[in-house]
Amino acid sequence: MSVKVSIINIGNELLLGRTVNTNLSWLGNQLAEIGLPITKSVTIQDDPQEIQNTLRSEWRQNDIVIITGGLGPTDDDLTKKTIADFFGKKLEFREEVWMDVQEIFTRRSLQVPEINRSQAMVPEGFVALRNTVGTAPGLYFTQDGKSLFALPGVPLEMKNLFENHISAILKNKYQCNPVIIRQIRTWNISESALAEKLKDVSIPEEIKLAWLPQTGRVDLRIYGYDKDLIEKCLNQIREIAQEWVWGEDEDTPQTILYEFLTKKNLTLAVAESCTGGLVQQLITSVPGASKYFNGGIVSYSNEIKINQLKVKSETIDKSGAVSVETAAEMALGVRTEFKADIGISVTGIAGPEGGSKEKPVGTVCFGISDKSQLLTTKVVFNGTRDSIRFKAAEFVIIYLIKSSRSQA
Amino acid sequence: MSVKVSIINIGNELLLGRTVNTNLSWLGNQLAEIGLPITKSVTIQDDPQEIQNTLRSEWRQNDIVIITGGLGPTDDDLTKKTIADFFGKKLEFREEVWMDVQEIFTRRSLQVPEINRSQAMVPEGFVALRNTVGTAPGLYFTQDGKSLFALPGVPLEMKNLFENHISAILKNKYQCNPVIIRQIRTWNISESALAEKLKDVSIPEEIKLAWLPQTGRVDLRIYGYDKDLIEKCLNQIREIAQEWVWGEDEDTPQTILYEFLTKKNLTLAVAESCTGGLVQQLITSVPGASKYFNGGIVSYSNEIKINQLKVKSETIDKSGAVSVETAAEMALGVRTEFKADIGISVTGIAGPEGGSKEKPVGTVCFGISDKSQLLTTKVVFNGTRDSIRFKAAEFVIIYLIKSSRSQA
Repeated sequence: MSVKVSIINIGNELLLGRTVNTNLSWLGNQLAEIGLPITKSVTIQDDPQEIQNTLRSEWRQNDIVIITGGLGPTDDDLTKKTIADFFGKKLEFREEVWMDVQEIFTRRSLQVPEINRSQAMVPEGFVALRNTVGTAPGLYFTQDGKSLFALPGVPLEMKNLFENHISAILKNKYQCNPVIIRQIRTWNISESALAEKLKDVSIPEEIKLAWLPQTGRVDLRIYGYDKDLIEKCLNQIREIAQEWVWGEDEDTPQTILYEFLTKKNLTLAVAESCTGGLVQQLITSVPGASKYFNGGIVSYSNEIKINQLKVKSETIDKSGAVSVETAAEMALGVRTEFKADIGISVTGIAGPEGGSKEKPVGTVCFGISDKSQLLTTKVVFNGTRDSIRFKAAEFVIIYLIKSSRSQA
Repeated sequence: MSVKVSIINIGNELLLGRTVNTNLSWLGNQLAEIGLPITKSVTIQDDPQEIQNTLRSEWRQNDIVIITGGLGPTDDDLTKKTIADFFGKKLEFREEVWMDVQEIFTRRSLQVPEINRSQAMVPEGFVALRNTVGTAPGLYFTQDGKSLFALPGVPLEMKNLFENHISAILKNKYQCNPVIIRQIRTWNISESALAEKLKDVSIPEEIKLAWLPQTGRVDLRIYGYDKDLIEKCLNQIREIAQEWVWGEDEDTPQTILYEFLTKKNLTLAVAESCTGGLVQQLITSVPGASKYFNGGIVSYSNEIKINQLKVKSETIDKSGAVSVETAAEMALGVRTEFKADIGISVTGIAGPEGGSKEKPVGTVCFGISDKSQLLTTKVVFNGTRDSIRFKAAEFVIIYLIKSSRSQA
């Protein structure tokens, strides 16, 4: 019989539409991956009577109940007290939790507000799960073979507690067959064009294929329980879609870049305009990026392109700031000025203003410069300002990876 | 007595975490605005037994039940049949709905697939709500003064039906007062410390105060029906928390920066290290940022701090790259090199590597340089690499806004 899992989300903002419930989708993903997909989810107001009623019905009908929200220092401990009452338990003071709370404040050189003392109160017989990124511990209780977890609603803390504690507890208790989920990540091709290319790939019934269009690219998700069957499908797709595949599974453009540059022992500098820092932000989101990333320039004004990047003012006058000619000089300029092995550049029109008939909003030019060559390309993206910026930022990184691979 | 509103979301992908439930937050917002805030929401699998059980409990406990999902052409009409059965109704063919469905296909010059004929089947006694952007009509039924709505799960169609039909039906039936929602945004103070400061603010019972801890800062949400009472609360909070308040309602650090710099007609340049481009990305996420943002440098290596930003190598040798001394020279350097009125800087340790006893991971130094002064400060943030970077990036923008305000 399948294990029934219910999530209770507590929070008025979720019902008032001020906060989108990303906790639920994150938990849904995690639980599906360990073979315990969510059966049902209930979102309620931060009200003891509602919590009591919902807990009663969900605890009766399910094997695992996970409560999120209502555990912060200002939540008056309503949730914790309600849970304790429901199971007929008293709240007790836990010295070790109080020490953790104090330590978090001490680390930040802050005094511990008295209000936080309540966070060390835990229902009798409950396990306090250590929260390393916030002051509210998670709670864990088992009875009649069932498991209850209560977590703070702050996504960072909820994830921390799930990853550090709950995942292991559940995997250990229910030796489930985890779903095998693999991904192939493609680029520079539309969902429908890719579907056409892949129409002859045979997918056995036991395997599921999902199309996940991302901002500016398409991921293919292949999942099921049979490893060999999945690998067969992957191989077919890899071969046919080779031209557009840039990564697999949890790869991101920036992690592939990390592997490539550290392996080749090359350094990189970036000159970006319309992406406004996003390219460099993606690159530096990978710990250890300082090994290969020297730095870069956000050249929002033409003066900075000319003064800092040594772009010729004639080039801007003749071809415009958004042109492959300017992109080429930006890439070369940043490589030289920042003494890097490779320079990459982005210049474009993210909108909503600034477009023209020849260069509509979404027009972005890219450059790559290294010792042996200078590559440029132009793409017209569609979408909002944010999505154009994001697509362009990922594009230049994948462009560098793909062109280096084809060169090698 | 308040009207109770329940939303039932049907969809496996919501529970598997493949889709974030933005329908719920959208409906939550709309319903709060017309004075009928959601009381509860339940998300279930696309399974007749689950739908039946959930509908039974929600119909009993609420005045308004809105079902979303399970009404598309490939959904086998499970949801519609289950709803009809629940109310003891038969499905009947509606000619006018069938004509609408046919018209949609004709408009797109397509043949009507036979599968779509089932979309014209409606439970007896139900009103079919005309869907102008898709083929599945909405359903509306009243009994014992209660209202049931069933809508397709595709956001565009769901919104179309709500805006064109449901909103008017509900406003007409319940002459409600819309909820007034206001926000005060604070910075540089923990949730618990702020709670301590605000403990004497008297919040009347009619007004609700919610604490919304964000990454690195805290928002206060005050809501209710009485505008004057809410304004009184806001004024008390504004006065007591003045030191930590940087914005209200939908303000973000970067939109406040936009207002401030365009009003004063000042230009800005940015030198950032550990934030790796994020500060500039936030600034340029606002359309029109090119009016005041000249550009900036991501100075990941010391050479770039020295060569491009004119930081003295003695300063780095003596105080370290992460120090208020280096931050000061970075801010001054970028202001001078980029010919801006204001220069701001960020240098720190985002981790996970690179921390020491004197300068633990999370240590970040900030500088602000303008014609008349040079300010610096040091903060130790906690959290992951991503959250430290995000907190630091927002911090420097708010730091600039707050110090300019206190100066004015």
